Amino acid sequence: MATHMAAAFKNAGHHIVQIYSPNMHNAALLAYHVGATAINAISDIDPNTDIFIIAVKDDAIARVTEALAGHQKLIVHTSGSTNLDVLLTYTDKAGVLYPLQTFSKTREVDFATVPLCIEAANDRIYADLEQLATTVSNNIYCVNSAGRKILHLAAVFACNFPNYLYEVARQLLTDHEMDFNLLRPLILETAQKVQQQSPAAVQTGPAVRNDQTTMNEHLQMLADKPQLQQIYTLLSQGIIKNNNGEHGDK
Amino acid sequence: MATHMAAAFKNAGHHIVQIYSPNMHNAALLAYHVGATAINAISDIDPNTDIFIIAVKDDAIARVTEALAGHQKLIVHTSGSTNLDVLLTYTDKAGVLYPLQTFSKTREVDFATVPLCIEAANDRIYADLEQLATTVSNNIYCVNSAGRKILHLAAVFACNFPNYLYEVARQLLTDHEMDFNLLRPLILETAQKVQQQSPAAVQTGPAVRNDQTTMNEHLQMLADKPQLQQIYTLLSQGIIKNNNGEHGDK
Repeated sequence: MATHMAAAFKNAGHHIVQIYSPNMHNAALLAYHVGATAINAISDIDPNTDIFIIAVKDDAIARVTEALAGHQKLIVHTSGSTNLDVLLTYTDKAGVLYPLQTFSKTREVDFATVPLCIEAANDRIYADLEQLATTVSNNIYCVNSAGRKILHLAAVFACNFPNYLYEVARQLLTDHEMDFNLLRPLILETAQKVQQQSPAAVQTGPAVRNDQTTMNEHLQMLADKPQLQQIYTLLSQGIIKNNNGEHGDK
Repeated sequence: MATHMAAAFKNAGHHIVQIYSPNMHNAALLAYHVGATAINAISDIDPNTDIFIIAVKDDAIARVTEALAGHQKLIVHTSGSTNLDVLLTYTDKAGVLYPLQTFSKTREVDFATVPLCIEAANDRIYADLEQLATTVSNNIYCVNSAGRKILHLAAVFACNFPNYLYEVARQLLTDHEMDFNLLRPLILETAQKVQQQSPAAVQTGPAVRNDQTTMNEHLQMLADKPQLQQIYTLLSQGIIKNNNGEHGDK
């Protein structure tokens, strides 16, 4: 994530002074990419900057903040599940810039489309962060720490779990010597459909039709995979339950 | 699905003789679209055609086949979960053209990218169907009835269940007055990532990191939603189990 955010700020014309990582190789790699200086000791931090952006593992945020707070500069973290209070323990110049996207080092992401969630210790800092955020993203949202936690949970349902189900499908095909490429267009179209519409309105499959014959047949096909049977039953029940409240295309 | 397939054949230069539906309005709508004649009685079928394509509900396939078999023309169905044998009861000129995609009347689909699964009663019919299929799709697969059943089950995991989880995520946000637009880019990128890579290799989230703190926190946030807790636990266990066998980016 640090890689993508740093590149986005660089491309928007901002000057990235330094990249810090305890691993000098990692620091140097990103620093080279964005024209910054690499450091691997927090004591080497150059305080001539407007903002420190902390993009480290959640449990390291407090320690890094403590080490930087003495410079009296704005400090922001980028974590979905970390409260702003973690920064406020050490400084009142604090905020959050949380980019809601799944990043991989091997894939380019159009950062302009990434929702950026902002929280700040006060209105002045909020305005500054908003101004900064608009230089890299067209999707700025004001989300506080409680909202960010909900978002992070919702993202597990919208991203991590679907990806796991793709893998289940891939394994089912592989077990029968079929190619995952058969499913790739379906996976993409399913995600594209909900870009404009509500997922409930475009739900398809045996559960939303309450097609018990097909569901029973599927459960029999999973007879030697009790965990997948459980998943199949639970998710089908969820679809049936939703559908009793709302109606969409079958 | 009939709409999209008929349009694809029409666009590829084929002549669609008639569109039959017991509902004349539906028949006329599609017939107008593809330059065919609409009929709502099977007795009005024009036998001057090379092929009858049956794209009806699964439980109506046998009845329609029986009504058409006397014409001694090639009959194919388009169903993922229906065995070729259902046609073979009435005719030996039988095959299957199963397009593996989720279709909605309100969304255009590039049919050339849709995987088309072919099965046929004999090699000559297979060759004919393959030739026909290549005029509308670049993704032709030979899949028999048993394979098609597996594919259909896998598609439930790869499409229907992820769509349900999108809806769960949408509801979590709505409960806290947040906008589903926050998650839409994440959903799309998650599907795009697996277009080139294996889902297991790009799995992210607390479960694949075995981050028990975050998972417990998420379960507490779902305290008043026991069904979602169960889904969260089961899917997280699945991710952890997969990850103990394979390794990918965290």
